[in-house]
Amino acid sequence: MKQPLGTIRKTKPLVHHITNWVTIYDCANMTRAFGALPVMAHAPEEAADMTAIASALVLNIGTLTRELVDAMIISGSAANEKGIPVVLDAVGVGATRFRDEMAAKILDSVHVDVIKGNYSEIAKLAGENARTRGVEATAIDADPGKLAADLAVSRSCIVVMTGREDIISDGRRTFVVRNGHESMGSIVGTGCMAASVIASFAAVNADLCDAAKDALCYFGAAGELAAEKSAGPGTFKMHLYDEVFNLSDEKAQSMMNVEEL
Amino acid sequence: MKQPLGTIRKTKPLVHHITNWVTIYDCANMTRAFGALPVMAHAPEEAADMTAIASALVLNIGTLTRELVDAMIISGSAANEKGIPVVLDAVGVGATRFRDEMAAKILDSVHVDVIKGNYSEIAKLAGENARTRGVEATAIDADPGKLAADLAVSRSCIVVMTGREDIISDGRRTFVVRNGHESMGSIVGTGCMAASVIASFAAVNADLCDAAKDALCYFGAAGELAAEKSAGPGTFKMHLYDEVFNLSDEKAQSMMNVEEL
Amino acid sequence: MKQPLGTIRKTKPLVHHITNWVTIYDCANMTRAFGALPVMAHAPEEAADMTAIASALVLNIGTLTRELVDAMIISGSAANEKGIPVVLDAVGVGATRFRDEMAAKILDSVHVDVIKGNYSEIAKLAGENARTRGVEATAIDADPGKLAADLAVSRSCIVVMTGREDIISDGRRTFVVRNGHESMGSIVGTGCMAASVIASFAAVNADLCDAAKDALCYFGAAGELAAEKSAGPGTFKMHLYDEVFNLSDEKAQSMMNVEEL
Repeated sequence: MKQPLGTIRKTKPLVHHITNWVTIYDCANMTRAFGALPVMAHAPEEAADMTAIASALVLNIGTLTRELVDAMIISGSAANEKGIPVVLDAVGVGATRFRDEMAAKILDSVHVDVIKGNYSEIAKLAGENARTRGVEATAIDADPGKLAADLAVSRSCIVVMTGREDIISDGRRTFVVRNGHESMGSIVGTGCMAASVIASFAAVNADLCDAAKDALCYFGAAGELAAEKSAGPGTFKMHLYDEVFNLSDEKAQSMMNVEEL
Repeated sequence: MKQPLGTIRKTKPLVHHITNWVTIYDCANMTRAFGALPVMAHAPEEAADMTAIASALVLNIGTLTRELVDAMIISGSAANEKGIPVVLDAVGVGATRFRDEMAAKILDSVHVDVIKGNYSEIAKLAGENARTRGVEATAIDADPGKLAADLAVSRSCIVVMTGREDIISDGRRTFVVRNGHESMGSIVGTGCMAASVIASFAAVNADLCDAAKDALCYFGAAGELAAEKSAGPGTFKMHLYDEVFNLSDEKAQSMMNVEEL
Repeated sequence: MKQPLGTIRKTKPLVHHITNWVTIYDCANMTRAFGALPVMAHAPEEAADMTAIASALVLNIGTLTRELVDAMIISGSAANEKGIPVVLDAVGVGATRFRDEMAAKILDSVHVDVIKGNYSEIAKLAGENARTRGVEATAIDADPGKLAADLAVSRSCIVVMTGREDIISDGRRTFVVRNGHESMGSIVGTGCMAASVIASFAAVNADLCDAAKDALCYFGAAGELAAEKSAGPGTFKMHLYDEVFNLSDEKAQSMMNVEEL
């Protein structure tokens, strides 16, 4: 897509989130900074209605409960029916059996269009014997690109693996995104925000692999620009919002650092 | 009231909130920045007890559930009994049937002293055929001032409609506040914070129409001052807290931009 | 301990939190800024499993519900079994009967290693006739040092009383920490963050009294450094994260202001 950021700002797609209580504000605020409209609504009585007026749905299991997962499945089904993209951020899969079971329940109940996770979360979803340390990735044995591609094939979706390098695969083609900065790991929430950014781009671009690629490159580019001005995680977070808000398609595309594997 | 901000800082009124999980921190932090004391407590077992030691109550349905609405009604009834002001922020009314029903349930169970919402939320509450896009206002057909006045009469309360211009009506007199800056719309949460600010001013001023007017003018003035120093939503939010904290009655009153309709 | 901060950064202990919805992000983000790994997980189905892979547990009753307290007891028991430190932040005890009862229930069900609260919260837990104004301390009659020491003896734990001066007692020895800055009271959440910091230090130091002392001195020292650069609560909060992130054991230890009573 030529001007994804311009398109988001012009059409202001509504992005419905059912997400965790830790980073919920930053997911909303980053969605807004990119130009989309966030809405968070998890009551089972309204989850489907809210999804029905949205252009994309983010499901994030960071502080999941059984009730929240039920609401996710209601919204996910409404999204499938309407044909809008569903992004699942598989936070903490590989840390507890409950997360593994609930993630499997969502994936078996809803067609998820983009599965996002860190290396050990995706490895665990792909059937590897991986362990996540809370919400932090641990080293995995398997080849990341192959893992992502295999999971993409088996779930018929896009897989996004975030880490020092981000991997994106639709099963046939696999890309590595090298935008971003280590400062993004110095604050809590950039992983969750990335899912909101992917959903915002997916809301305006039917090529979801392309949308995920653009989202991670643009977000990473803003992170690089913010890091230059920052003296620590406090100043970094502030500048990250400014840089996203002031980013242009032209600037971001000149900084894109992506390669096909 | 001559020195509302000085009075808040001197008396430090306790403002009880039952609110949403997205902006809950910023509601608390903005209440504190103005000099009042925030407390958030939603367990049904303690909601009434916490309201009983408070000087104002904020109800915000941004991420409502049936259980949370039950707690709001318990606290609202305790507030009515004690005679302290109740502010309802009708977030997302007009977006789903559930929000419309729950807002009606609150308004029919509790006397709300100040109803706050954006243009389409207030229009929907006033019986118009309005639609809210998630939590974002859409254009309305009716005259905003007349809508606010009519709802104020029918609910015997103050109505606050926030948008590019803020409308405040007690049914007999209607005011428009032109303080504020578009940067306030670039971050998530300024609408919710405004309800906390109104409650803080209402806690020290029995003339609730006057309190709402002062609250929006002061908050908007701080927003104008912050915008001058900001390069985007990250720096804006930081400066907004500083400007509120450093605001004086004198400074705010010299900037007040309010007119009777 | 010689290099507690260096040890945290090297070993990156996982700190499990079951906490409130107001400051949950800042608890996580401050844990990360000190170099530990935060995880928040409150579903009863996974609370014990998450604690079982953690090195410390924080329980914070700021926005407690009966269900959340049940999860805290599940996690607390798992922590006791594993032998990792449990920190209880007794937010709002003394404000409502429900908080008093739930805090007592936790303390009677779980061995808490560090009880933290403000002056009136600790006084109430120690059996005094104290009242907390929401989550804000009120003046107490008793001698703070004696109160802390008595509660430490009766509960066989470390007691941390935060306020203008912080008191730490293990029942035999009592210390006063004078690090910190009044700006820390100008933003919501520094009290909650302090519990996360104590847990992070306790995760790497078996001498919990020493760990609590270091935690409050280091956090307070960062607050002093941040205050020098700040013009209000917005800039202060930003600089606080930078200063924590850039703090060294050497710098913090040169600023420590602690005295045995």
